[in-house]
Amino acid sequence: MPSLADIAAALGVSAPGGEAISITGMATLAEAGPTELSFVGSDAYVSELATTRAPAILVQKRVKVPTTWTRPALVVDDADLAIATVLKLFAPPVPRPPAGIDPAARVAGSAALGEQAAIGPFVFVGERVRIGARTILHSGVYVGDDTVVGDDCELFPHVVLRERVSVGSRVVIHAGSVIGSDGFGYRWDGRRHAKIPHVGTVVIEDDVEIGSCVCIDRAKFSATRVGRGTKIDNLAQIGHNVTIGPHCIIVGQAGLAGSARLGAGVVLGGQTAVRDHITLGDGAMAAACSAVAEDVPAKAIVSGTPALPHRQSLREQAALRRLPDLVTQVRKLQEEIEALKKK
Amino acid sequence: MPSLADIAAALGVSAPGGEAISITGMATLAEAGPTELSFVGSDAYVSELATTRAPAILVQKRVKVPTTWTRPALVVDDADLAIATVLKLFAPPVPRPPAGIDPAARVAGSAALGEQAAIGPFVFVGERVRIGARTILHSGVYVGDDTVVGDDCELFPHVVLRERVSVGSRVVIHAGSVIGSDGFGYRWDGRRHAKIPHVGTVVIEDDVEIGSCVCIDRAKFSATRVGRGTKIDNLAQIGHNVTIGPHCIIVGQAGLAGSARLGAGVVLGGQTAVRDHITLGDGAMAAACSAVAEDVPAKAIVSGTPALPHRQSLREQAALRRLPDLVTQVRKLQEEIEALKKK
Amino acid sequence: MPSLADIAAALGVSAPGGEAISITGMATLAEAGPTELSFVGSDAYVSELATTRAPAILVQKRVKVPTTWTRPALVVDDADLAIATVLKLFAPPVPRPPAGIDPAARVAGSAALGEQAAIGPFVFVGERVRIGARTILHSGVYVGDDTVVGDDCELFPHVVLRERVSVGSRVVIHAGSVIGSDGFGYRWDGRRHAKIPHVGTVVIEDDVEIGSCVCIDRAKFSATRVGRGTKIDNLAQIGHNVTIGPHCIIVGQAGLAGSARLGAGVVLGGQTAVRDHITLGDGAMAAACSAVAEDVPAKAIVSGTPALPHRQSLREQAALRRLPDLVTQVRKLQEEIEALKKK
Repeated sequence: MPSLADIAAALGVSAPGGEAISITGMATLAEAGPTELSFVGSDAYVSELATTRAPAILVQKRVKVPTTWTRPALVVDDADLAIATVLKLFAPPVPRPPAGIDPAARVAGSAALGEQAAIGPFVFVGERVRIGARTILHSGVYVGDDTVVGDDCELFPHVVLRERVSVGSRVVIHAGSVIGSDGFGYRWDGRRHAKIPHVGTVVIEDDVEIGSCVCIDRAKFSATRVGRGTKIDNLAQIGHNVTIGPHCIIVGQAGLAGSARLGAGVVLGGQTAVRDHITLGDGAMAAACSAVAEDVPAKAIVSGTPALPHRQSLREQAALRRLPDLVTQVRKLQEEIEALKKK
Repeated sequence: MPSLADIAAALGVSAPGGEAISITGMATLAEAGPTELSFVGSDAYVSELATTRAPAILVQKRVKVPTTWTRPALVVDDADLAIATVLKLFAPPVPRPPAGIDPAARVAGSAALGEQAAIGPFVFVGERVRIGARTILHSGVYVGDDTVVGDDCELFPHVVLRERVSVGSRVVIHAGSVIGSDGFGYRWDGRRHAKIPHVGTVVIEDDVEIGSCVCIDRAKFSATRVGRGTKIDNLAQIGHNVTIGPHCIIVGQAGLAGSARLGAGVVLGGQTAVRDHITLGDGAMAAACSAVAEDVPAKAIVSGTPALPHRQSLREQAALRRLPDLVTQVRKLQEEIEALKKK
Repeated sequence: MPSLADIAAALGVSAPGGEAISITGMATLAEAGPTELSFVGSDAYVSELATTRAPAILVQKRVKVPTTWTRPALVVDDADLAIATVLKLFAPPVPRPPAGIDPAARVAGSAALGEQAAIGPFVFVGERVRIGARTILHSGVYVGDDTVVGDDCELFPHVVLRERVSVGSRVVIHAGSVIGSDGFGYRWDGRRHAKIPHVGTVVIEDDVEIGSCVCIDRAKFSATRVGRGTKIDNLAQIGHNVTIGPHCIIVGQAGLAGSARLGAGVVLGGQTAVRDHITLGDGAMAAACSAVAEDVPAKAIVSGTPALPHRQSLREQAALRRLPDLVTQVRKLQEEIEALKKK
């Protein structure tokens, strides 16, 4: 159990008193118990200081703490980052299968496992697969023939990596995600939808994290690619031949149609849709629920269905709020003009 | 095979003749065979009585059955509820693994199983897990360390409950759902998206039912919570630290971003999105495909993207239908005014 | 490795020189290496011919190839169809479990397997199941009691077919999909949401392909039905009692609510929503992200939220782009009329 001094040290700040207090966890001001550290990220929460049971708080530098607060307050530049740092001290270890191959796993003789790799029960590892050092495959993971997974990866239960997929190092994939299914491509041949073979693959670069029940399809040819450091939330759909740059953020239930391209650091809000063959430039952002049907320049922010530059979208929404009245106004104007014309 | 008399008894109504007819199932008027009970829930379907082969029908009280219908008609207050009651008589038992631990399951020695608990093949049960009496884990279910599942639950194939999750009694979770993955939280540290540890958990209260491929993320701290009696449809996304009250209905593919709060009895239509930190009050409803970006008061109905009070949304939609004409009208008005000004 | 002559033969066209060139794969003009065939599907790509390293190309008949291109060009009627044909020559075989039952599978004694059926490890096959000839169940597939799967099917890892489901021949279901969970149906009984039993089933007809993490619910009674030759993309939601005609295309993350009906050859774009009990006629199309809340006649195209005839939708969108200016114009008109009235 860390003391407040330990926490201050982890944050690189000074603890103004109370160094010996034992902290058992973090909680909001309203929910904190007498051994839980809390935090004030903005002025909106200051009033809750009067009633919180927290023995100490983290405070964002800009926030003014009232003089009535006499317990220790650790002032930090970035409350969210500080919370992340403190939470690491409390994070219980994720339970993992031990290093080695579980007797109830099925690992092909031609597969190569790195040192300390941990293969759980009911895992399938196909021919010529390479699994890096210290990589963990939880119960029920499937890794198809010729797939390569780097070092220090963690694949949670039931993740499916189909054959010939390439996964970098330090990649985390949460339970139930499927990487490398065929892309959705057919061509009507006069009698039926003829399947277009998808002979390509999927490349997941280093430091990517992928949520639960995410689908990333293999390419028609070449590769569907997720750039290093990109983070993908649950239930997202990444179509065949999509290219995602480094450090993108793709929020839950977003969908990218075939051959869409995201530059570096692109952010897609939840439930966003991106049309096939569309490009979003570096640092572009699409607000939640937007439908991106045209290319978006670097650093631009778009929103709406169809997605427009965010400012235009806001103007149209504001005008739309006035539209019912506008219909009435125009009708009145017509009457007045009729009256004027009769004069 | 129940007789019409058995069905009438189950419904607590009188069967006006035909008590001995054997009924083999239920079907719509158009599809019913000569041994299938059908139903008329509204006047819209009365015309189909002329041609149906059903030997008897359930009829909503308000519906006027024509005098030409001479077969038995069971009059009920609520046709939908009556159908549910009758269907129970025909429901074939769901096949389940037998009580005990399948030899192909992997159950930690420190796990505690209630009486008559049934653990299917390829199931993983971690350290210190507690499984209640009569709870059924179908093939391939994963239950992480320290997770607790109550009595009389049923987890369908491949459900994943990560570590330290708490599930009440009489909870049903359909195949492929994932409870307790890390929430989607990162903080840009200048070089990369630094992961915010999610040390919290998920609490699923009693009598909850969760569809297939649903994702419910664990909290940053404290718990993501689903209130008792709430029902969640397939492919829904429940973000970290979301709080869902009792008896809510969340329809397929809806998504709730982090720290959203639903009161009691809230209804979210299919594909609805709820922004992070937004609250919907008790009994509030969001229509299908709406994007809720502001708090919704109790009992209010909202719709649209962004979601507005439903009446306002309807007015705007009606006005929008007239907008192309309005543009033309305004152009004409401008011309007429120009003409008037010249006079 | 096929030669250009082999490829020309597969396409039924003549190779104008270069017949002996060995081709190792396909790639875009920009990405092709010196042994990869490329293609020009439209005039937009002609400029890339100047710099491509491809030793030969496929060319859509209408495209004008510049005289500066001196390497072989195979002229085809339909570039996409030709690409599909060529890719088949390069498609590496999908790795599959060998025919027979894996010793780590659990197959009920009363199940009947067709000749050369292949049952992988960790597969569960219930009582009285029938699996057709040459059908492949990959690792971790679950097939519930009394379910029937036809010949030449392929079920990828962790697919769940619940009990009493019927699957035709030549059906492909990708990893993680769940067929036959209970439909989402409850009826408030005054105290709680009472579950409506779903005693029906799901019927998947011949030649259907279903993506990853798709959910298709079982019917309240009778069957949820997917017509022959229909293709369903990842993460789609098909509610109870939905009827989908033959040769439909349902793109990723689309959702069909209960009892929706699609005729033959209907196309639903990505993230489309279809309200319960709505019918789309033969050949109807709903654009991506549309919300279909009213019946759509055969061959009609709809778009938008709510979905309108596509032309109307485009007109409204165009008018909406002008709405902010319209508000200003109307204000000016009001002032001008006031001025005129004062005269």
